[in-house]
Amino acid sequence: MSDHNDGPVVVGVDFGTLSGRAVVVRASDGAELGSAVHDFRHGVVDSTLPATGEALPPDWALQVPADYIDVLKTAVPEAVAAAGVDPGSVVGVATDFTACTMVPTLADGTPLCDLPEYAGRKHAYVKLWKHHAAQPHADRINQLAADRNETWLPRYGGLISSEWEFAKGLQILEEDPELYAAMDRWVEAADWIVWRLSGTYVRNACTAGYKALRQDGEYPSRDYLAALNPDFAGFVTDKVEQPIGELGSRAAGLTAEAAAWTGLPEGIAVAVGNVDAHVTAPAARAVDPGQMVAIMGTSTCHVMSSDVVRDVPGMCGVVDGGIVPGLWGYEAGQSGVGDIFGWFADTSVPAAYTDEAARRGVSIHEYLTELAAEQEVGQHGLVALDWHNGNRSVLVDHQLSGVIVGQTLATRPEDTYRALIEATAFGTRRIIEAFTGAGVPVTELIVAGGLLKNRLLMQIYADVTGMALSTITSEQGPALGSALHAAVAAGAYPDIHTAAAAMGRVERAVYVPDPDRSKAYDALYAEYLALHDHFGRARTTPDGNDVMHRLRRISHAAGGA
Amino acid sequence: MSDHNDGPVVVGVDFGTLSGRAVVVRASDGAELGSAVHDFRHGVVDSTLPATGEALPPDWALQVPADYIDVLKTAVPEAVAAAGVDPGSVVGVATDFTACTMVPTLADGTPLCDLPEYAGRKHAYVKLWKHHAAQPHADRINQLAADRNETWLPRYGGLISSEWEFAKGLQILEEDPELYAAMDRWVEAADWIVWRLSGTYVRNACTAGYKALRQDGEYPSRDYLAALNPDFAGFVTDKVEQPIGELGSRAAGLTAEAAAWTGLPEGIAVAVGNVDAHVTAPAARAVDPGQMVAIMGTSTCHVMSSDVVRDVPGMCGVVDGGIVPGLWGYEAGQSGVGDIFGWFADTSVPAAYTDEAARRGVSIHEYLTELAAEQEVGQHGLVALDWHNGNRSVLVDHQLSGVIVGQTLATRPEDTYRALIEATAFGTRRIIEAFTGAGVPVTELIVAGGLLKNRLLMQIYADVTGMALSTITSEQGPALGSALHAAVAAGAYPDIHTAAAAMGRVERAVYVPDPDRSKAYDALYAEYLALHDHFGRARTTPDGNDVMHRLRRISHAAGGA
Repeated sequence: MSDHNDGPVVVGVDFGTLSGRAVVVRASDGAELGSAVHDFRHGVVDSTLPATGEALPPDWALQVPADYIDVLKTAVPEAVAAAGVDPGSVVGVATDFTACTMVPTLADGTPLCDLPEYAGRKHAYVKLWKHHAAQPHADRINQLAADRNETWLPRYGGLISSEWEFAKGLQILEEDPELYAAMDRWVEAADWIVWRLSGTYVRNACTAGYKALRQDGEYPSRDYLAALNPDFAGFVTDKVEQPIGELGSRAAGLTAEAAAWTGLPEGIAVAVGNVDAHVTAPAARAVDPGQMVAIMGTSTCHVMSSDVVRDVPGMCGVVDGGIVPGLWGYEAGQSGVGDIFGWFADTSVPAAYTDEAARRGVSIHEYLTELAAEQEVGQHGLVALDWHNGNRSVLVDHQLSGVIVGQTLATRPEDTYRALIEATAFGTRRIIEAFTGAGVPVTELIVAGGLLKNRLLMQIYADVTGMALSTITSEQGPALGSALHAAVAAGAYPDIHTAAAAMGRVERAVYVPDPDRSKAYDALYAEYLALHDHFGRARTTPDGNDVMHRLRRISHAAGGA
Repeated sequence: MSDHNDGPVVVGVDFGTLSGRAVVVRASDGAELGSAVHDFRHGVVDSTLPATGEALPPDWALQVPADYIDVLKTAVPEAVAAAGVDPGSVVGVATDFTACTMVPTLADGTPLCDLPEYAGRKHAYVKLWKHHAAQPHADRINQLAADRNETWLPRYGGLISSEWEFAKGLQILEEDPELYAAMDRWVEAADWIVWRLSGTYVRNACTAGYKALRQDGEYPSRDYLAALNPDFAGFVTDKVEQPIGELGSRAAGLTAEAAAWTGLPEGIAVAVGNVDAHVTAPAARAVDPGQMVAIMGTSTCHVMSSDVVRDVPGMCGVVDGGIVPGLWGYEAGQSGVGDIFGWFADTSVPAAYTDEAARRGVSIHEYLTELAAEQEVGQHGLVALDWHNGNRSVLVDHQLSGVIVGQTLATRPEDTYRALIEATAFGTRRIIEAFTGAGVPVTELIVAGGLLKNRLLMQIYADVTGMALSTITSEQGPALGSALHAAVAAGAYPDIHTAAAAMGRVERAVYVPDPDRSKAYDALYAEYLALHDHFGRARTTPDGNDVMHRLRRISHAAGGA
């Protein structure tokens, strides 16, 4: 940190689910000079609407866009101050966002929920990525696309998620048509924040492809949309279409208003929007075909570039230039990972354990991990399915749920905890095999995200996948990735490859699989696969048991969340 | 309690898994005048052998017979003193025991473990009912009996348990042949305690039938036994056969030695031995065909008399006079019930819950029950299999294990707790349907045992089975049942029917099924059945998943318990 003021710096801002983080990075070598975090005042709005106190239905998850602006006003200047750099040395700013997170706006980008006449209507708010109430709409989108053999469908593994733009948009039309009519634009938050910073609305190539179904330069046809609902025919032309920007390119210069918010120089480069997971790949120097980055936190996102385009069953999507311009960007994911461990620690661990962890001054996760590390592979006699938050890839079904098989009166909390960790590792292996099996080989697995710090978990992932794990060495991968894109947008580097080589951070083969443990895990993985197909494919195959969907319907009918 | 000394009294002694309980009862009307409990000094020996400290293998469970004598010496005189009756007014004593619990002895009944030369050998000790280490022997017994079409096999639902006399005896022969040779008699603890009290070894008709495979006056043939192992050919003739005594009949008079232990008059009637579950039926006035008694505690035992003999798949057994002389006595069971709730409360409930329960001054079970009672049927979205301690009836497989399907990040401890209660209720319904389906209708369900006090659980059982529940109104059903048998043996009543009418305690239709909840449970029960067959029948059907057996093998190979 000796020479902070040595040359130009860039600012990356990572918008997560609960907060935004700004980081100030030296453009020459990626050194992280300072950072700051600002929590969203409203967090995730999933119980009652702030303006009215109205109770939200199950599976709703909203946000308030003013919270995003607050990040620009607080975290950005704080990060610059923490870095100890002259704000005048900042040459570019870039952002990444959760996705698919959608803002309904007027033609000038004003969020509808900011207007007094709409503040009391729930559809006027931001629909956060984990808003899952549009599943019936997604089901119809999928059924119709399959029936019509829509060519874009295989680009999404054969299934569109209820989290994405079309399902969420159709939900507004059908549940609040008046608000739908008032909505001039249906904007990815990733692009909305860039619009606020630069005064320019440009759609980033990443979310346009992954979330808005743009393939080969086209969105789903007017004809298809009309078949979904006649009033939905103009959805693309009226509310979605907008010029596309390549990742790492300059959207426009920082506006005077945004310069005032952030304390950054007016007119500096603002990069086109990007997504938290995708922006992390260059931060981990994963810009070549076969380098899969797993960003592991509450959930896991897998991103990988390739020089071939293939239909990978159940992937989230493949998009031209979706991660790095010039390559096909693949995305997959697991909708519950750290969230499952957190749920278990919060709800299923007795006082004897939490007390002992407190006595030792370690977290309950550290204590459970320590106990779980003492056992041999398979000793606990358990196998679990990691679907407590649904399944995002391979099966693409948010209505699936968790399973644990093998508990006895001798089963201890650390046994179940380890089985849940292993279940998520099996889920990752299943995804890797889906890619490899479809002709998109995964040659390296690079881990980023908060779960990196659990060494047992990392070793289990290496043993289960049979792959050596590389790890990102920055603790703020997405923000670093955004900063890297800011550097490209500002012209400090000619392209993302060059920027990644100079600014990215990775250590190779940090966790190496143990052959004996890998072999032992092969047997447990076979059990996982059998349960996976039995409980996960019952909608589509004559075998199997669709109990999870039935239980969910029963629960909803009985008033369950 | 005003007229304690009004007429003859009888003493019943109930030997449980951890303690023995004596109760003093007025013969005329069954009034319970006093009782006392004595804990077994060695409890359940399942980790190390007392004499040597030798570690026991997995699934072993032993006891020390001297602990049983201590109950006679302490609990019996204490109960008489507590009753405030003249010991001279006691006209009979009867006992009931866990089963199948086996004592290896010399010809005079001396337990081998009491001899210095054998005290260091684990096979010299009592094999408690829940000693499960003879499963390989039981498997061979079953396979050979099936191959040879042994006529007694269907009387046990087609499967013999590893808990019973033959499997445990064969284990001794094959693991410690020298000790097997030294063992003159292989005695049910139920009969051994009567032998100690009366000086007479008489086999009770109940365990001879249920546990020693005696059917139509015969045990398995010498030819069959020789085919199991040539050295086992003489097992029945050398170590098992003994005159049979009807339940409720007099074995002999109390010996001078036992009179000194107990403080009871020498020469009073000692009834033939009996089993804790079976002796409870008359205590609940369940002596007629179709009246099923469920004794619900850590596990559940179902006993019912009938005037017909039928092959009920997966029942524990049917024995002529097995509960009441003159009727066919049926037995079934669930190997884990209260034990599963206890395991969950001990291992899977966070401090916030145990703290709140403590603050309210209620047990964690009461608190979880209170929370669970607030929800509608199916609201939790869960279905579980209640096999955490294996499956005793219908599937008869101690290697099965628990399953829970449907957990999400919103699942709370009370949700899982309720699902586990429901799973045990579904298990009971499955057993009732096995009986009814085999032509042995269950017309009334009468509940006894410690779980009676959980009103939610009782209501769930009523709703799940669709049957009104009667309940025993004595809190010490087995000991009362033994006292009732003592009265018959002493001649106070001509038979058990008459004694049950005078001394038994039951309240009819205490819990009545709610039609709406019953209907809702039908849907969840269908899910239970599907999982039951998928995971439980994989050994015997081409469908299904034998994952539980494979997980157990993997666990054992990896050093798991």
